[in-house]
Amino acid sequence: MTELKPVPHGLLQAFRAYESALMSDDVAALDALFADSPTTLRGDAAGLLVGHDQIAAFRASRGGAPGRRIVQTHVQVIDEDHALIVAVTELDRGGRGLQTQLWARDPVRIEYGGWQVTAAHVSAPAPALDTRIWRVVGDPLVSSHTSDGALSGETVAVKDLFAVAGFAVGAGSPAWLEQAPVSSSHGAAVAALLDAGASVRGIARTEEFAYSLSGLNAHYGAPPNPKAPGRIPGGSSSGSATAVALGQASIGLGSDTGGSIRVPAAYQGLYGIRTSHGAVSREGMLPLARAFDAVGWMTRSAFLLQAVGDVLLPEAASSPTSLDDVHLVPSLVALASKEVGAAVSEALPGAKPLTWEPARLDEWRQAFVVGQAYQAWQAHGAWLETRLDTLGEAVRGRFEMARSVTRTQAAEARAVLSEARAEILDVVGDRVLAFPSASSVAPTAADAAGVRDDTLRLTCIAGIAGLPAVSVPVRTPGNLPAGLCLVAAPNRDRDLLALAQTLAE
Amino acid sequence: MTELKPVPHGLLQAFRAYESALMSDDVAALDALFADSPTTLRGDAAGLLVGHDQIAAFRASRGGAPGRRIVQTHVQVIDEDHALIVAVTELDRGGRGLQTQLWARDPVRIEYGGWQVTAAHVSAPAPALDTRIWRVVGDPLVSSHTSDGALSGETVAVKDLFAVAGFAVGAGSPAWLEQAPVSSSHGAAVAALLDAGASVRGIARTEEFAYSLSGLNAHYGAPPNPKAPGRIPGGSSSGSATAVALGQASIGLGSDTGGSIRVPAAYQGLYGIRTSHGAVSREGMLPLARAFDAVGWMTRSAFLLQAVGDVLLPEAASSPTSLDDVHLVPSLVALASKEVGAAVSEALPGAKPLTWEPARLDEWRQAFVVGQAYQAWQAHGAWLETRLDTLGEAVRGRFEMARSVTRTQAAEARAVLSEARAEILDVVGDRVLAFPSASSVAPTAADAAGVRDDTLRLTCIAGIAGLPAVSVPVRTPGNLPAGLCLVAAPNRDRDLLALAQTLAE
Repeated sequence: MTELKPVPHGLLQAFRAYESALMSDDVAALDALFADSPTTLRGDAAGLLVGHDQIAAFRASRGGAPGRRIVQTHVQVIDEDHALIVAVTELDRGGRGLQTQLWARDPVRIEYGGWQVTAAHVSAPAPALDTRIWRVVGDPLVSSHTSDGALSGETVAVKDLFAVAGFAVGAGSPAWLEQAPVSSSHGAAVAALLDAGASVRGIARTEEFAYSLSGLNAHYGAPPNPKAPGRIPGGSSSGSATAVALGQASIGLGSDTGGSIRVPAAYQGLYGIRTSHGAVSREGMLPLARAFDAVGWMTRSAFLLQAVGDVLLPEAASSPTSLDDVHLVPSLVALASKEVGAAVSEALPGAKPLTWEPARLDEWRQAFVVGQAYQAWQAHGAWLETRLDTLGEAVRGRFEMARSVTRTQAAEARAVLSEARAEILDVVGDRVLAFPSASSVAPTAADAAGVRDDTLRLTCIAGIAGLPAVSVPVRTPGNLPAGLCLVAAPNRDRDLLALAQTLAE
Repeated sequence: MTELKPVPHGLLQAFRAYESALMSDDVAALDALFADSPTTLRGDAAGLLVGHDQIAAFRASRGGAPGRRIVQTHVQVIDEDHALIVAVTELDRGGRGLQTQLWARDPVRIEYGGWQVTAAHVSAPAPALDTRIWRVVGDPLVSSHTSDGALSGETVAVKDLFAVAGFAVGAGSPAWLEQAPVSSSHGAAVAALLDAGASVRGIARTEEFAYSLSGLNAHYGAPPNPKAPGRIPGGSSSGSATAVALGQASIGLGSDTGGSIRVPAAYQGLYGIRTSHGAVSREGMLPLARAFDAVGWMTRSAFLLQAVGDVLLPEAASSPTSLDDVHLVPSLVALASKEVGAAVSEALPGAKPLTWEPARLDEWRQAFVVGQAYQAWQAHGAWLETRLDTLGEAVRGRFEMARSVTRTQAAEARAVLSEARAEILDVVGDRVLAFPSASSVAPTAADAAGVRDDTLRLTCIAGIAGLPAVSVPVRTPGNLPAGLCLVAAPNRDRDLLALAQTLAE
C-alpha cells in the first residue's frame, strides 16, 4: 500500500465494505456505495456506463461478480475527502484483474462514513475466446497456401453457415452442430478467399439457421456491438460483423437472405455487400431460402469491400457509375426513423430524389416473409419437425409459422413477388437507388422485435428482385451508426463497390 | 463531457497533449506528463506498473500505442488542482477502449500548466485469441462424446506436441507446422481425457520442440505469467500453464523431459505432475528425448490434479502415504535461492530432513544434458539439419550443441546416468523426497538463461531416474509463486497425487 498523506478516516472500511458487498452481490449496498449522480461512471471492457441509474440497472441484471480477492491496494490520497484506490485482484477462476475507483466523502451522509465511489474502471482477465462471437478461432484457423495474393494479410471471420474443411457447420444451433458431419472441403467462397491469400481467423456465430435479423442467439448470447454498446449487433451475420467491428478479423463473410449482411453492417458502422442473387457461388453454404439467399461480406473500409469483390465476383462489364447516378428515394427514407433518415439524406446532399411510391410495399414484405418461410421449411423442415424445441423462442416462432405455410399460400406469395420484382426492376433500371439499410439504429435487445417488420420493408426490395445492395456506414445526429443502402440492377455489384469507394473518399 | 465544477485551467490542454504524444510515441513528453514519483501508477490487462521508472521502461520498449481517437471525455473535477478524466477511445484497428487518468497540478511546474497524471488505467479491446498462449481455441475445439464422465465440464489446453485429430502438430515451430501432416486421430492422452468427459479448449503454445524451460518462444512471444506479471511463464509447457493460470482451461496437458511441467507449475503457482517414465502412453506425442520424456499436466487444484491422474494413470497398488513419509532434502533446498528455499521449508514444517549429499550432481546434470541432446538430435536432426536457421536463438544453440554430441560422448553420458539412476533409486527407496521444483522464482526474460543450469540440477533427478514428480505451489516471503517438488519411486504417481491433496487440505 502506497500513501503520501494519511489515509482519510473511514475510507478503507468503505472500500472493504464495497468488496464484501460485491462478493455477496448485495446490490442495495453496492448502489449505496456509488454516488447517486448522473455523472457517476463505471467502465469495463464492455463499455462505459454513465450515471447511477445505468450502473444500478447493470448490477441488478448481471447476477453477481466473479469471486476474487484483493492482492494489492494502492491509495492516492487527494485530500481528506477524496482518494483514488487502485487494487489488483486475483480471480477464483484464474487470472488477475485491476480496479480503479475514485472515492469522495459527503460529510452529510452517515452510511459508510460518507464515502462513495464517483468513478470506477474495472478490468477482468479475458476469456480464451469470446464465445458470443466465435465458435472457434486460430492463428490462423486455416492458412492460405499463398503469401502474395490480392488478399494476403487479411483475416476472415466465416459465418457458421459455410463449410470449413475439418469442421462441421454449426448454423448457430447446438443441436444441429452435434449431428452435422465434418466438412471435407471448404465452401466455394471460403476457398476463393483462401486462394486469394486471406486466412481464416475463425468460425463466427450466427443465429439459428440464419433466420433472424437481431443477432440474439438464444444459445450463445448476443455478440457485443462495439460501435453502440448496449445495443444489439444485428444479424444473422452477427458474429462476423462484431469480429470485424472489433478488429478481430478484417473480412466478415456472411449471407444475406432478408438483410443479414445489411442490418449488422448498418448497426455496427461497417461496409457490407449483399451480392446479386446467384452471382457468387453458394456451394458449401447452408441454405435458408434458396430463392433469396446471397453471399455477402462486411469490412471496415470500402477499399477492402471492393478488393474482396474483385476476388469473389464474376467479371462483369462495368458501367462507369458516378454519384450523379444515385437517386435518393424519399418514400423509403420516410420509412426509417427520423435520425436514420437524416443521416442517410445528409450523406448524399446532392442526390436527385426519385419519386416512387411503392403502394403495395407492405404486401410485398408479407409475400417475401411467406415465400422465405416456405423455402426455409423446405430446406430444414424434415430435420426440424421433431426438433423445434431445440430452437430459441424467436426462431422457433418463425419456423412454426413456416411449417404452417401451405402450397397455395406459397403460390400466392410467388405471384405477388413476381409482380413486385417486375416493378422493382423497372424502377431501378440503370439507376442506383439509395435508401436506409435498416429502419432504425441498433435497438436494445428489448426493442429488437419491434423493428423487424419496418426493416424488412426496406431490405426485402433487394431480396425480392435479386439486386446487389451495398451498405455504407453513416452516422446519425446522435452519433450512432446507421446504413445507407445503395442498390442497382442485378450483377452491377462491382459498380456499387466502386461507388462506395467514391463515397468513402 | 460532464462536469460539476469548472474544468481547471490547462487541464484539457494537458490531456490533449498527452493524447498527441501517445499517438506520435513521443516518449519524452509522455514521461514528463506522468508524475515523477515512486507511487505513480499505470495499469492495464497485463498488470499494474508501480512508479515512474517502471512506467517509463514499459513505454520505452513497447514501440508506440495503437492508433485511436477519443470519442467521449468525462471530467470529474475534484478541486482546481485535481481531476479525474475518463475517456472512451475508438481504435483504428477496431473496437473501443477505456482510459481513466487522475491528474494533479504541481503549481511549481511550468510544462503542461503543471498538470501530470498520477494514476492511469487503460483497457483495450481483446484480440480474438491471445496468440502467445494459443494456436487455436474453440467452444470447445473438440467436444467429448460423453456428458457424465469423471472429467465432464473440464477443459483441456493441449500442448502443441500432442496429436489432435484434424490438426497438425505445430511443436512451437512455424516451419515444422507448415509441413506437418494433419493428425487423423488424437494422441492417447488426449483421447483418454475426451473419453473421461473433458473437452479440448484448444492447442496451446509450446517452445520449439519443447527444448527449453523458459517459455520464451521466439516466434509467438512468451505467454504472460498472471501470477507474477513481468516474469517469464516457464516452459516448455508454457501455453498450457498460462491457460490454466488464467482460467482459460482447467487442465494443462503437457510433457516433461527436464522440467517442462514442474518449472511452469512452480513459476505460475499451479499444481503439476510429471508422471513416471512410461506410465502414461506417449503415443501421438512428438518426442524430444525418449529416455526422459514423460506426459504431465497442470491444474489450479490438487483435487483436479488427482482426478486427471485417476483417468490417465494405470491402476497401481497404492501404499498409504502420509506427510510422515516426506523427507526434505536440505542439500537440494540449498541449491535454490533463499526465498524459494524458505518457501519450500515453511510448507513442510514437520518434515524429517534427509541427509543426502549427491556429490556428483553437477556431473549428473551435465550427463543428462548430453544424453537429452543426443536423443533430441536422433529425433529431429534429420529434419533440422538444413533448417536450424528456422529456430530461435536459444533453441538453435541447444540443437547445434546436440548435433555435435558424438556417439562416444553419448555412451559416456549413459554410463554416468546409469550410476546416477542407481544411487537416486537407492536414496529414494520408499520415501517421498521434497525439494524445490525450480531453483528460483520466475525470473524476468533477461535473467532466464541464468537460472537454467541451477534449475536443471534439481529437475534432472526425477528425469534421470524416471521418477514421478508432483509440484505443489508455495509462496515466497515476497509473495511470489514457487514450487515444492515431491518425488517417489517409479509408479508411485498416485501416492504423490494423494499426498498433494493432503498438503492442499
